[in-house]
Amino acid sequence: MKICYWVIGLLLVSMVTTKAQMPEDSLMIRRMYDAALTSGKSYENLWVLCKGVGHRLSGSENAKKAVEWAYATFQTMGLDRIEKQPCMVTHWERGRPERAWIKSRSGKRMVPVLALGSSPATPRGGITANVLEVFSIQEVQNLPEEKVKGKVIFYNRPMDPTFLNTFQAYGGCVDQRSVGALEAAKKGAVAVVVRSMTVNHDDWPHTGNMRTDDAVAMIPACAISTNGADLLHQLLSEEPSLEFHLEMDCRTFPDAPSHNVIGELKGTGRPEEIIVVGGHLDSWDVGEGAHDDGAGVVQAIEVLNIFKAVGYKPRHTIRAVAFMNEENGMKGALQYAAEALRKGEVHIAGLESDAGGFTPRGFNVDGSDECLHQLLSWENLLDDFLLRQLQKGYGGVDISPLKKQGAVLFGFAPDTQRYFDYHHTEADVFEAVNKRELELGAASMAALIYLIDKYDLPLNRQPNQDK
Amino acid sequence: MKICYWVIGLLLVSMVTTKAQMPEDSLMIRRMYDAALTSGKSYENLWVLCKGVGHRLSGSENAKKAVEWAYATFQTMGLDRIEKQPCMVTHWERGRPERAWIKSRSGKRMVPVLALGSSPATPRGGITANVLEVFSIQEVQNLPEEKVKGKVIFYNRPMDPTFLNTFQAYGGCVDQRSVGALEAAKKGAVAVVVRSMTVNHDDWPHTGNMRTDDAVAMIPACAISTNGADLLHQLLSEEPSLEFHLEMDCRTFPDAPSHNVIGELKGTGRPEEIIVVGGHLDSWDVGEGAHDDGAGVVQAIEVLNIFKAVGYKPRHTIRAVAFMNEENGMKGALQYAAEALRKGEVHIAGLESDAGGFTPRGFNVDGSDECLHQLLSWENLLDDFLLRQLQKGYGGVDISPLKKQGAVLFGFAPDTQRYFDYHHTEADVFEAVNKRELELGAASMAALIYLIDKYDLPLNRQPNQDK
Repeated sequence: MKICYWVIGLLLVSMVTTKAQMPEDSLMIRRMYDAALTSGKSYENLWVLCKGVGHRLSGSENAKKAVEWAYATFQTMGLDRIEKQPCMVTHWERGRPERAWIKSRSGKRMVPVLALGSSPATPRGGITANVLEVFSIQEVQNLPEEKVKGKVIFYNRPMDPTFLNTFQAYGGCVDQRSVGALEAAKKGAVAVVVRSMTVNHDDWPHTGNMRTDDAVAMIPACAISTNGADLLHQLLSEEPSLEFHLEMDCRTFPDAPSHNVIGELKGTGRPEEIIVVGGHLDSWDVGEGAHDDGAGVVQAIEVLNIFKAVGYKPRHTIRAVAFMNEENGMKGALQYAAEALRKGEVHIAGLESDAGGFTPRGFNVDGSDECLHQLLSWENLLDDFLLRQLQKGYGGVDISPLKKQGAVLFGFAPDTQRYFDYHHTEADVFEAVNKRELELGAASMAALIYLIDKYDLPLNRQPNQDK
Repeated sequence: MKICYWVIGLLLVSMVTTKAQMPEDSLMIRRMYDAALTSGKSYENLWVLCKGVGHRLSGSENAKKAVEWAYATFQTMGLDRIEKQPCMVTHWERGRPERAWIKSRSGKRMVPVLALGSSPATPRGGITANVLEVFSIQEVQNLPEEKVKGKVIFYNRPMDPTFLNTFQAYGGCVDQRSVGALEAAKKGAVAVVVRSMTVNHDDWPHTGNMRTDDAVAMIPACAISTNGADLLHQLLSEEPSLEFHLEMDCRTFPDAPSHNVIGELKGTGRPEEIIVVGGHLDSWDVGEGAHDDGAGVVQAIEVLNIFKAVGYKPRHTIRAVAFMNEENGMKGALQYAAEALRKGEVHIAGLESDAGGFTPRGFNVDGSDECLHQLLSWENLLDDFLLRQLQKGYGGVDISPLKKQGAVLFGFAPDTQRYFDYHHTEADVFEAVNKRELELGAASMAALIYLIDKYDLPLNRQPNQDK
């Protein structure tokens, strides 16, 4: 009970302080949080998306179902406008499950792998070859061709666990996945195996996309679980001449028709100015795309639900977008931006949630110093809701093309510690998402959109905004 | 890749800023985090405690094993002093698993319950009685005796999901569990059923202790899962005359001998002044006591491991304590404080981790304004490690008796969103703890103890420190 009085006392003190500053905003944001936490629909929506549709790679039947789900969801919400915006998207299929093993003196050891997106298949019967372990792209670039030719190149630089923000560790390693195969192919390698992007030691391979180049004959590439990578490393140190066997059935098809799905509340003051809030509807073809990015999609939808629930009528047009094809092409995002340009639409701001449905810590802003100052001017309001990480940073892949149209971009920044436990794996399922954490994320996004809508933003004068 | 450069750039900027302020401290804290995240032992220690010992209620065989485990763990660490400090502790046993059902016109519906700690058993064969649903202690206090007599009193006030800090929601409800049975017994009720302390709707009953009074004939009391509570509420609304049946086998034994377990690094400058860092070794007799409070114990132990790993020799004596009997008696904590007083020991500060092994957000300080200012003077250093919640608040049950001996108390404050998914349930197992979150907690605690050790604290002039 002692605890109880203490903390309630503290809460009252902090609420009173804020109320004295911006009472109306504080109360409105409080109502938005109450709506999200007591009658929110984000968790239920995520359940339907994950369990009713499942994973939904661009071009797949499930991706079509996801589009229908998003459209039907918007239809129930009493919005001013909804749209399925056509776009052509990448269509790559994994085919039959991959098989891989290490063939050493001690026998054959199966290891968990997943083909990387955009990878070609192996020949039927697979590829078997010696392995060269490397730790960087540069290492491959510096090797003479005869060392690489005919080999399986094994990229094994681990994510650095000492970064507090796990996205920084990811950023320091993901080149191996994105361009490792391309660089190895140039030197005549026959296949590539990449250590999975996680600091954990476990049995989940983490897929993800890789870059291709029409001028280079691409080679099959897969991600191996970190335990698998550790085993391969160990066995290689004992027996450098061991062989790796890989069978993959994946294939790239011609681009397929699909859609971004849009739901809109029309602005009451400046309807011609748009604030977009989004996540991406497509996912990898494993697990259920719960954190990546089912969470982002249902949170973006929830912002509109919350506005309706509290009766807030925005001055600007608020548009929730479920973008298609973020994972392996970004073509939905590019189409959205192209359409905006074609129609002469004015996007003043964008907010994306694509870092998982974890407990909120703040927002990144990708805009001018003045925009950061504007965000920081709301610090006291956001502090009450434990949003204390307000800083310059990345917005999101799907909203990124809007930057050169003048939009200020914001990235929802949840806690990052658990993201790479799930990212692009079979483990990214509904059960990995906590209800409160998801709902708090949606509420925090609604709060930010409300503040942007009410107070506007300084013009986005980035020196390099046209790059 | 764009993301990568952005964030690494930001990191460098923030590191440089801090280094210019307190370069030595920033580097030392960075080394402590590196040690925790790359060669830390907290996660492995938690695995052994949870899987090798399991749950460990005071007075149980497992509690004895846990004492041996803690002592053996300290023995491997090359400390200056280790001790098993004898204390007498509460000894209550659950006995045979509880059984409970709702008996209505539609038949018999089993519901998940757990006896509350300190509760007496039902008679063999159980208790069957009509139910009176109430929502507060006051409601029972205001009812005439004839309304309560012979009834099962069902406390069903839910935790409020709109509190951002779930401990505040807990604090607003837990009186039903702690004194609900006592107040109902005074009015002649035959048993008490309390809605579990969680905002979730699930099937886990949450046990916990209840207050007893020698002057009152206590009655059996149990926690019911929230789904069970919702069902009972629903059926009662349809059929107020339904009956509840409860069978419990629990029993309180005479106090049992046990131990607090202490490991110590002797101070190089002021060895007679002690900074204590602790968690509690006992747990409820369900699940594995992973978050509550295995995490706190291994984090307290890890602070000493981290100091050894980085070669930091503290000025003050740093004492890690695994306290016994926090859950249902606090007798280990009282014994520890009594021994300190008897020996004339000077405790300048205490830090407790007893809010789960979740991602760190900051620290509470239970001390004077000057102490809060001291904590805030380290804001820039702690900010780099995402510790942004530095405020007055509760320290912890086990260190609380040291306050009147002049110690400034600190509470480790991790994110609270998931704590009541697990608290006092079968679900509180090792797998519910994330490795990085646990390690970051330990590192943050080491950082705070380092700063207290290096810079000291203002005298703790609380107006009510002798209460």
